[in-house]
Formats: sequence, C-alpha cells, structure tokens
Amino acid sequence: MSDVMSSTYKGDILDVMIYGESHSETIGVYVNGLPANVTPDTARTAAFMARRAPGRNAWSTPRKEADEVVFERNGAMLHGYIVNTNTKPKDYSSIMNSPRPSHADYAAKLLYGEGASKSGGGIFSGRMTAPLCIAGSIALQELEKRGIQVSAHIKRIAGIDDDSYSAHGVNDEGFRSSLAAVAGKEFPVVSNERGELMKEKIEQARTEGDSVGGVVECVVYGFPEGIGGPIFDGMEAKIAQLIYAIPAVKGIEFGNGFEGSDLKGSENNDPFVYADDKLELKTNHSGGIQGGISLGNVAPIVFDCAFKPTPSISKIQETVDLKEHKNTTISIEGRHDPCVVPRAVPVVEAATAIALYDLLLATE
Amino acid sequence: MSDVMSSTYKGDILDVMIYGESHSETIGVYVNGLPANVTPDTARTAAFMARRAPGRNAWSTPRKEADEVVFERNGAMLHGYIVNTNTKPKDYSSIMNSPRPSHADYAAKLLYGEGASKSGGGIFSGRMTAPLCIAGSIALQELEKRGIQVSAHIKRIAGIDDDSYSAHGVNDEGFRSSLAAVAGKEFPVVSNERGELMKEKIEQARTEGDSVGGVVECVVYGFPEGIGGPIFDGMEAKIAQLIYAIPAVKGIEFGNGFEGSDLKGSENNDPFVYADDKLELKTNHSGGIQGGISLGNVAPIVFDCAFKPTPSISKIQETVDLKEHKNTTISIEGRHDPCVVPRAVPVVEAATAIALYDLLLATE
Amino acid sequence: MSDVMSSTYKGDILDVMIYGESHSETIGVYVNGLPANVTPDTARTAAFMARRAPGRNAWSTPRKEADEVVFERNGAMLHGYIVNTNTKPKDYSSIMNSPRPSHADYAAKLLYGEGASKSGGGIFSGRMTAPLCIAGSIALQELEKRGIQVSAHIKRIAGIDDDSYSAHGVNDEGFRSSLAAVAGKEFPVVSNERGELMKEKIEQARTEGDSVGGVVECVVYGFPEGIGGPIFDGMEAKIAQLIYAIPAVKGIEFGNGFEGSDLKGSENNDPFVYADDKLELKTNHSGGIQGGISLGNVAPIVFDCAFKPTPSISKIQETVDLKEHKNTTISIEGRHDPCVVPRAVPVVEAATAIALYDLLLATE
Amino acid sequence: MSDVMSSTYKGDILDVMIYGESHSETIGVYVNGLPANVTPDTARTAAFMARRAPGRNAWSTPRKEADEVVFERNGAMLHGYIVNTNTKPKDYSSIMNSPRPSHADYAAKLLYGEGASKSGGGIFSGRMTAPLCIAGSIALQELEKRGIQVSAHIKRIAGIDDDSYSAHGVNDEGFRSSLAAVAGKEFPVVSNERGELMKEKIEQARTEGDSVGGVVECVVYGFPEGIGGPIFDGMEAKIAQLIYAIPAVKGIEFGNGFEGSDLKGSENNDPFVYADDKLELKTNHSGGIQGGISLGNVAPIVFDCAFKPTPSISKIQETVDLKEHKNTTISIEGRHDPCVVPRAVPVVEAATAIALYDLLLATE
Repeated sequence: MSDVMSSTYKGDILDVMIYGESHSETIGVYVNGLPANVTPDTARTAAFMARRAPGRNAWSTPRKEADEVVFERNGAMLHGYIVNTNTKPKDYSSIMNSPRPSHADYAAKLLYGEGASKSGGGIFSGRMTAPLCIAGSIALQELEKRGIQVSAHIKRIAGIDDDSYSAHGVNDEGFRSSLAAVAGKEFPVVSNERGELMKEKIEQARTEGDSVGGVVECVVYGFPEGIGGPIFDGMEAKIAQLIYAIPAVKGIEFGNGFEGSDLKGSENNDPFVYADDKLELKTNHSGGIQGGISLGNVAPIVFDCAFKPTPSISKIQETVDLKEHKNTTISIEGRHDPCVVPRAVPVVEAATAIALYDLLLATE
Repeated sequence: MSDVMSSTYKGDILDVMIYGESHSETIGVYVNGLPANVTPDTARTAAFMARRAPGRNAWSTPRKEADEVVFERNGAMLHGYIVNTNTKPKDYSSIMNSPRPSHADYAAKLLYGEGASKSGGGIFSGRMTAPLCIAGSIALQELEKRGIQVSAHIKRIAGIDDDSYSAHGVNDEGFRSSLAAVAGKEFPVVSNERGELMKEKIEQARTEGDSVGGVVECVVYGFPEGIGGPIFDGMEAKIAQLIYAIPAVKGIEFGNGFEGSDLKGSENNDPFVYADDKLELKTNHSGGIQGGISLGNVAPIVFDCAFKPTPSISKIQETVDLKEHKNTTISIEGRHDPCVVPRAVPVVEAATAIALYDLLLATE
Repeated sequence: MSDVMSSTYKGDILDVMIYGESHSETIGVYVNGLPANVTPDTARTAAFMARRAPGRNAWSTPRKEADEVVFERNGAMLHGYIVNTNTKPKDYSSIMNSPRPSHADYAAKLLYGEGASKSGGGIFSGRMTAPLCIAGSIALQELEKRGIQVSAHIKRIAGIDDDSYSAHGVNDEGFRSSLAAVAGKEFPVVSNERGELMKEKIEQARTEGDSVGGVVECVVYGFPEGIGGPIFDGMEAKIAQLIYAIPAVKGIEFGNGFEGSDLKGSENNDPFVYADDKLELKTNHSGGIQGGISLGNVAPIVFDCAFKPTPSISKIQETVDLKEHKNTTISIEGRHDPCVVPRAVPVVEAATAIALYDLLLATE
Repeated sequence: MSDVMSSTYKGDILDVMIYGESHSETIGVYVNGLPANVTPDTARTAAFMARRAPGRNAWSTPRKEADEVVFERNGAMLHGYIVNTNTKPKDYSSIMNSPRPSHADYAAKLLYGEGASKSGGGIFSGRMTAPLCIAGSIALQELEKRGIQVSAHIKRIAGIDDDSYSAHGVNDEGFRSSLAAVAGKEFPVVSNERGELMKEKIEQARTEGDSVGGVVECVVYGFPEGIGGPIFDGMEAKIAQLIYAIPAVKGIEFGNGFEGSDLKGSENNDPFVYADDKLELKTNHSGGIQGGISLGNVAPIVFDCAFKPTPSISKIQETVDLKEHKNTTISIEGRHDPCVVPRAVPVVEAATAIALYDLLLATE
C-alpha cells in the first residue's frame, strides 16, 4: 500500500490520476486514454478554472492563486497542472496532535501516520479540486462538441433558495438558458436577487467567525438516451462515485430524491406525455434517469449535492490533545472561505462531466 | 455492447456479477476472488434472505417466492442462485408500447430495443435484489467474523419517523443493541410503536391503490479505522456506488447530509473528545467518515438512503401510446408491494457489506 | 492472497476463470463478458473435447475420462464444466516430501504450503487443459462464424518432422486444407506417414519407461488485418501470454523465430508481392505479424510452441527427502502419457482462440 | 479506438504508458502506482540508458542520441522522458506507398491509415525501447535493493555463441559474477573473445549492406521463491508478455525451451539435490520456473529471446507500389544498425524487471 499523495480513478476508458498538496511544487492531473483528436482549448480551460478560483471577492478566501494551467500532451496521456506559488514547508505537528474538528487532520494521521505531520494531509484540501476541474474542463469541452450542456448552480445556502429546476417545466428552454448564463456570473445563481441574500448570509457567517454550507444543483441537457444499465451499471452509481470525490460533499440525490421518498406513488410518478409532438416526462422526479438509464431529450439529468459548511472557523472549538490524552480547545487562525459552495459549482460540473464523458467513450 | 441480462461490479478484489429476470429459470450471482477459507453459512444466508422475502404479511406483495439459495463453490468463484418457480413467458409488448410511469419500461426499451418486449426488462425488477442479498450475505458473514456489525432499519415512511441514530450518543451501546435486534423483526424498525404507525400508512396506501416511499438508515459498527482515502478513494464514493445498485434508491447522504448543509460550521463540526478515556466524536454529523476515511471506534459509519415510492400503483395514470404517437392512460393490474422499504432494509445491508468487504480484502 | 485452486485471465472484454483439480468433484471454466447471442454448440464442443481426451490409444494414458461438458449460461456468464469420475482423496504427502523432478510438486508446496499435500497441486495437472479447451471451443466457434480458421498440428516429435507451413507458399490453399483435415485425425499430423514414425518414437519411449516432447505449430487463416498495436499491444504478447497458460510449454516463436535470428536481413525479410493481383508476403518469416499487428490475408499468423517431455516417467530419478534433508531416488508409478504433444494440439488452438476472440470483441 | 501514438501496460499494480515517435518532441514513459519511497537514482538510470544508446562504435548507427532522462515525480506517478533533438518533420508517404519489407510500415498503415504518412509509424521504431528502459531502470533499482540481479547478455549472433548459462552449474557463482560484469562492457558478452568474432560478423554484414540477428539470454538471480501461479498466473506468461513489447523479438523460451522439446523426460527432467546442504536443481532445464512458479535460490530464472535481423538494409529488395498496384523494388537509404542485438541486451533486462517488480509489488 502506497502512502503517496495521489489518487486514481479507473473509468471504463479513462484513467484519471490527481496528485499534489497545498504546498507541493505543483498540483495536477493525469488523464490516460484520451482519443487522439482531443486537444484542450486552453482559453476555455482558463475561463473554467477562473470560476473556481478564490480571492476575487468578499465571500471567498483572499489567498491569491493564479491557477494557470499548463498542459502536456503525450500520446493518450494528458497532464494538466498548476505551479503552486506558496510552497513554504509548514509544520503541521500541532494540528496533527490537536486535530481540527471535521477536518481531515485525524483521518490523514490514520492514513499516513507521522508522515502527515509534514504535509498536513494537504491532498484533502479543497485546493485539490483544481486538478479535478482541469480534467473536467476537457470532458466538458468534449461534451459540448456533442451538444451536451452540463450546468450547475447554487440551489441553496443558509436557508436561502435560488430559483431551481423543479420550478419549471421538464424541458423549459428559458430555464436552460438561465442555467447556461450562470457560468458567466461571479456568484453562480440563477436569481441574482436571491444571490444577494445568500451573500449576506455568507458575510454574516464570516463576521461571526463561522461558516455556512449549501446545496448545488446540476442539470445535464442533451445527453444521449439509453446510456447506463441495470444494477451496477446505473448512471446514478457512476455519477455519485465521481461527485463523492469532491471534499465536503455529504449527500447526493437524483430528481426529487429525499423529498420524493415522502410522496405517494401517484404524486411521485412521472407520466409520459407528448408535448408539441415530442415525448417527454410531465414531471421529472426521476432526475432524467430511470432503471439506471438516461432518457435523452425525454428528460434532462438532474441531481443535487449537499456540501457541509467548511470546517475551518475561527470560533473556539473543542478538540483533544492526542499526546497528553486530554480534552482541549482550538481556534483556527488565518482567513478561510466562510462558504465553499460558490466555488464548488464548477467542481460539480467537472466531476459530472468526467463521469459522462467516460460513459460516452465506452459506447462510441 | 452486449444486451445480455446481467451486470458486473468490478471491485478492488471481488468481481460480482448478477444475472436473471423475473421469469428466467434462475436468478443469481457470481462472486469471483473469494479467499479459499470463505464458506457460506447456508443457514445464516437463508435467514438473511427471509428478511427480504415477500408474501409474508399485509404490507407486501402476496406472491410467494421460496428464495431458497443454492451455492456452488469452485475455486475462487462462488455462485449462489435461486430457482424461479414462475417462468411462464409473458408478453410485455403492451407495456413496452405504453410504458408505466417511472418504471424502467421505457428505459429497458432504450437499452434492449425490441428484445425488451420478451422480458419486460425483468432485470430491473426489485426481484433482482435477491442475488445482491446472496452476495451480501457472504460479505456480512465475513464482516461479522471480524466483529463488524452492519445494521439498517426503516428511518422514515410516509412522514412517520423511527427512533434513529442521531437521537443517541455517538457510540451508544443501547442503540447499537436495538439496531442489532431489528434483524429479527418482521417489520424492521427500532420502535415497534412507530412501526405500527408506518404500517397503517402503508395499509392506507394499499387501500387507495397507491404506494409510499421512505428512508433507510444504515449504521456500521466496528469497521477498522484508516480505510479509504482522499479524492477518488473515499469510503463515501465506494458505498454510494454500491447503494445505487439498488432499484428505487434516489438519494444517499452520510451523517447529517442535506440537513447539515443548512447548518453553520460551528453547529455542524464534530468536536473530538475523550469520553471514558476513549477518543470519540462528540456528535457524528460526519457519518463516521472524514476525508473519505473511516474513523474506526471514534465514530461508526452512518448513512441514509432515499427510496422512491414504488411506481406500481393501480390508480389510473397518464402515459403514451408509442405506436399511435398519442397520449393515453394506464392502470397497472395485479397486486404489488405498496411499499418496498421494509424489504429494502436487508438489501441496503447487503450492498454496504459488499463495499466494505471488498475494501477490507484489498488491505488485508 | 488466496490459495484457492483457480486462476483468472482478465482480457480486454472477457474474463476467463479456470478451476479444479484432478480429484475435485468438477473441473471447469467461467467465461464472463460473452455477448448475448453467443450460444455454445454442444455437439461441436464435444467433438473438440474428444480431440483432447486421453485413453483412446497406445500412446496416451489409458485412464478413461468422459470429458462430457455441461454448460450453464446466465447473463453474460458461461460456465462449462466436467464432472470428475475419480474423486477419491489421495495422500500426496509422500511426493510433497520427495518432489518429482520437473513436476509442479515442489512449486505447489511453495505456493500452497502444507495444503498442497491434500491436493497434490492438482491444478497444475495437464487435466486442467480440459477447461481451457471448453472456453476455447466457444471462442473457436465464434471465430469460425467470422471465417477464421485456427489450425494446429504436431510439427515435431523426437526429431521426426511433420510436413509444415514453411514448406509451402504463404497462402497455399492446399496446405490450408491439409491443416483443416488434421482436426479429424486421431493423430494430429499433416503427413500420416510422418505420424507413424512419431508414434514409433512414442511407443519406444513408453517401452523404456521414458517420455518425449515436441513442437506444435499453429496457423491462423482469415484473421482480420490491423488488429494489435505497437509495444504492449502487440499480437505476439497477447498470444504468448495465453499459450503459456498451457502446462509444459517452455517456448513460443512466431514465424521463423529462433531460426530467423541466425539469418541475415536480406534472407529473413519478407518481400511484398502482388500474386494473382492480390497483395501478399513472398515469404512469411514474420509469422503474419509485423509491428505487433495482424496482416490479414497478406499473410496468416504462424507460430510454434515447444512442449517439454512429460516429467512423469517410471525410470528411477534422483530427488531429495525434504524432511530428512538428504538425497534419495524416486520411481513414479502408474501409467502416464509418454507424450502429451498429440493431445496438446487442440489445447494450443483453444488458447489461441481465446486470445484472438478477446481481441476481436474489443474492436467490434 | 484511439490512434494516438502510445501504448499502455496494465499490470497488477503498475500501469506503464509509453509514448512518442522518432521525431516527436519527446519520448517517454509514465509509470503509475509506484510506492512513495521509490525515487529514481538518476545517475544509475543514466548509466543504464548509456548501455542502450547508439552511436558509440562501428557496429551501431552513428546517429547521436543524448538520451538524457528527465524525471518528474507527482504522487504515485513517475514520468521519465527524453527530449528528441531531431524533430524535423519527414514525409513518409513514399515508404508508406512502397512499404519496406518486414518493417512496420505496412502495419502502421493498417493501424493508423493515412495518418501514418506523417509519422512513419514512428512508435514502432527501436528508438521506443528507450522509454521502456527508463521504466525498467526504476524497476531494476528496486529489484537490486531486494538483492535481485537481472543480467542479460548476447548469447548468439550470426552463428557465434557466447559462453552461456547452460555451460555452468545451476548456481555457479563465477558465472553469476561474469554476467554481472557484462553490464560494464561496451559489447555485452561474457567472453570478450567470442564477442570479437561476433563484431567481425556484424562488420561484415555492414559492409555488405546487410544485417544480422541474434539471441539474448537473461538470467535472474535472487528472485523470491513461490511467486507466480498455475495456468494464467504463471511467471512465463507474465515475462513473455513484457518481452514481446520489444520490437524485433520473435521468440522466447525458458530453460532449454525448444531444445528441451527434442529430449526425453529422463534427459530433460531436473533432479533435486542437496549441494553443500542447500537444495538446488541438478540441471536447470526448467529455467527456474516450475508450474509457473519461481523456485528462488533452488534455481535462477533463465530464458532466451530471439531477435530477427534488423529489416533496414541497403541491399535492393522487392516490394510493391500500393498506388500503382504493381511490384517494384526498394533500397533503404541512410545508415542503420547492422545489428540491434547488443543494444537490445539492456532492453531485455528492462522488460524483465518491469514484469518481476510488478509481481513483487502485488505480493508485498
């Protein structure tokens, strides 16, 4: 068993390997198995990465990261990476001894032992979603060439709801356009008005030395029908596996998910209808997936992911001193994102795109 | 691409292949990669299968299935199967033409084309959770030998909540015992009183020709610490992938999941404490997994799965006539489970056990 | 690490798992990943197995094996097996203590430890080529449907050479027919006259309590062009890996192989020519594979495999007493094949067919 | 199916991906799955690469290649590459129309279609053994740390035999030392005297505008016992698969291989003996592998690989004009190695080491 700071996803066709830590020289991703004609559009990747980048406004951490992606392509392998500007070695022995609540500190110690003291388990950092976005940007570009739109937005933060998919028709073109527009916004919501309210909540948490979580909704339009399969081959299994690669995700539901589990069959079932002579679902409680299989234009793929509030808060918290074997307290210094959800929106698109693109390559 | 009615999970060590349909001669599972000393305890498997079996009471379908499991062991391969008693060929062309809402009928047609008319896409049937349970029973037996308890129960049906993990201490021995006792109950809840209320709701749905969904909670005690890893190697990803192999699952959340996404960091974080000199979490919003890694005795693994209401209802529903290309209605005949959740409880344990056992084999 | 008596080949599409031992209840093979429309032709499989069966004549062991294959097909899995008639448990502790020279006795002890005493490492037995032939028979039937002929014959035994590929033109139709006819012969040679001389040599070895080895040549006609690839993807690598699954194989060479390594480039190179307006090689020293890639009708695939003489001989041999830690001698009792090569001919076809069929499935 | 110029080996633990062409900017290799503590010793790698480098003497091509290896290590991924100095685009359309006999020209055209005209199928070039050597050098360093010696030498060129393993005792320390010394020689033979005769033959071929092939013998001392397994898991299968990744290899035999197939059992069997109180084989016709399993110190692993004469010769050869659909002739210009065998010696060690190291990682 290797204790190297990296992690590999073995898809049907693509192998995706992410490596690095907050303070390593580079962080990046290797994608093996790419068709010959796939070339990254670096401008589009840069624009995509900018959506995830921090330091641009009040609600995100002020630490500047350039996040400039360098690509190397060799055969079927694509390597994309970012040079870390801050590689000063830190001493994490203090937090390894008194682990921050709900951080990966304690987990890192379990996995890497004393070695974790050098790195602080930096591979668990939210920073490591950057390489996921690099790989995802390639997948998104390839999906787009096939007319597939993968759009996420903040569905909810601190009790404030954005306008969302379920408030519209199954294939509502207006909402589809609104979602497409989110990618161009500094704060990724459909309703800017609701976004302002969310920002207030985030700012309030920041002021209190606290943090807030939220929900991201992702909708996929134009994905071909008939992809996936029964039992282990279901689309939900494939997407969920990739979405859980995002730190802070603690839940995923398709269609109306948990809410649907409280309904009756007569309320929850999605009738088939011909609308303007095109077959579609009347409602899309199924999230565009039935029997594990995509429904194509009959209904888009829709799912929500729950992000826990970021555990880094300056409020004093209880923890333990592992050496002294006693209870103690901790106050986490430095400035941190009081809410990771806005920056998580493109990450959800990236993870989803990797799942979908791998599925497509396996059938093309 | 094969259109054979089967599905294979390729784990780190184990390959699990499930096959069959409602009306095929047998349904079963092949597990390749089992250590030599693993022998199924057929009595325990039979007892486990009985928990999933239908036809025993008012709230489940009266169709009798013997579900007697036959095992064949050859080298590292274990084949477990059930002989179907009802193999009369049906003609599914009618439902394939007018697909039942939120069933897999339409999806089966997309995947298998006209061939689906012969089988009705029977591999999508809830009946196919029986082979999953066969494989799961072996995994559960092996986990139990290592002192690991995997216990699920109905957390919620039709708005009625069972007593559940979060109402108790992180490592509450009393609740652990209560959960262990659920396996012996006809109706798998902790609180029999709450169970009676749930059964009323189910009976009411049955009377109305309708159905209800629900939530299953699963808790894993005694799983070793330090299993899993960052990014793609997280325990949540592995468990979620297997849980989504269960038909009707539309959501999975770990710890307080979606609820946690509405909290502040100061509310959601799990402080470390020494309790009776043993390290544990003060709360377990993390669901026993931090940084994708199991916490061992510091906190058990806890997650919820959302089951949609079964789509088979006798109420008249809207659908389409695909040949005539027009809207129509459908009324599903025959008797069906008005609620699959009670029978889904052991299935959740089975899927979870397969994920956990494969992870353990990879590290042992 | 499991010490189960089985072995799995993970191909691009097919997984092939062989299990059993000389004295287990059954021996057999599981093939996972077969397309839905592949159904074994049991009569053809039986005919194929008969070519491998022993006990039919003077030069093979008189032990009768029925070798009747039973097939079970479930989803993408095909299970083919043979019921062993002789399952009397033996005590192998004597040969495990004084291992038979060049048998797998000592190796089995290294791998399985004391457990090997019960089974005698029976999975190493030549008997285990029967399951390989079961899987191969399916592959051969599928190849034949695509117009592909896989034909092996004894090229050489004890210094006696059969008529062989290199003595004929690259695409000589007459020789192709002669090879096809070999499958119907009791003694699988092209020249019956040469076969008689070989049989004399085998009989002589038998009389002396000794054994002889030999070379099997395999020619594949009609395999599509452009299959395989550079470096790790070469056809030779794939075929060699499967051929070495046959016990007693100690060498494989493509085209003129080792002989070619003694030639000059001007002698060894295969000129391209138009013959009767069809492109072909003038000679086929390449064995129909260049750059790891099949040449289709330009040149058939040709290779040789070296079989060592069977180590089971009644002559007194030197060995050791492992417990007493001293040198001793051994005389192997019972009747054994003085030459396994005739029966190995269909086994070579089987192993080759599995390699080729898996390659085809990956590109179809 | 990608037509990218790269090739991936998926081992039990390691994935090895080689990419590049004669005229691409870089050629190199990605190795994924390396333990954290594995760091390339760049000086040793450089020394190893020098053994493969051309241009140093009369018998090899005068084209200078620096072959300076640059390493990048990121997580479990190691990337080693060489910057090509000569990246001038060539026009290969001429040789693609009139393919050079026994080159990969025609095969490249089958695989890559017209795209091959730009690259000349450069991934088939012997130059691509450099990346194999990069990966192999890491594996060799790790094997050496475990006391394992992998030593190859020229066994035979143009009918001239070097001193070789079979002329010595099974565990002859003197020969083991002689083999170890070969790595330091410009011409990799045991007997320098025999080497001079080989060089004369090579020089003679060069003068005639011709080429010669040969045989490389590889011996592995100190490899642990009990590695490998029956049927598909045999050491021979694993090693052969990797050795066939080397261009120009057309045969591989273990122990006495093809020669052994002409012997009787009584001649070919390897008696066990205690020699100086240590168990070993009296002869090693088995090549140190029985039942697919390594014998450890009882007998080293020994095998031969046949290299065909390099097809690049200046003598006029027959070929075809594919456009004009007629026979023609070709004379290959430029200077080429009249014999690749000396430079192939470290390549054989590299391929072997990758196979062995992957096997070890799977059991450690």
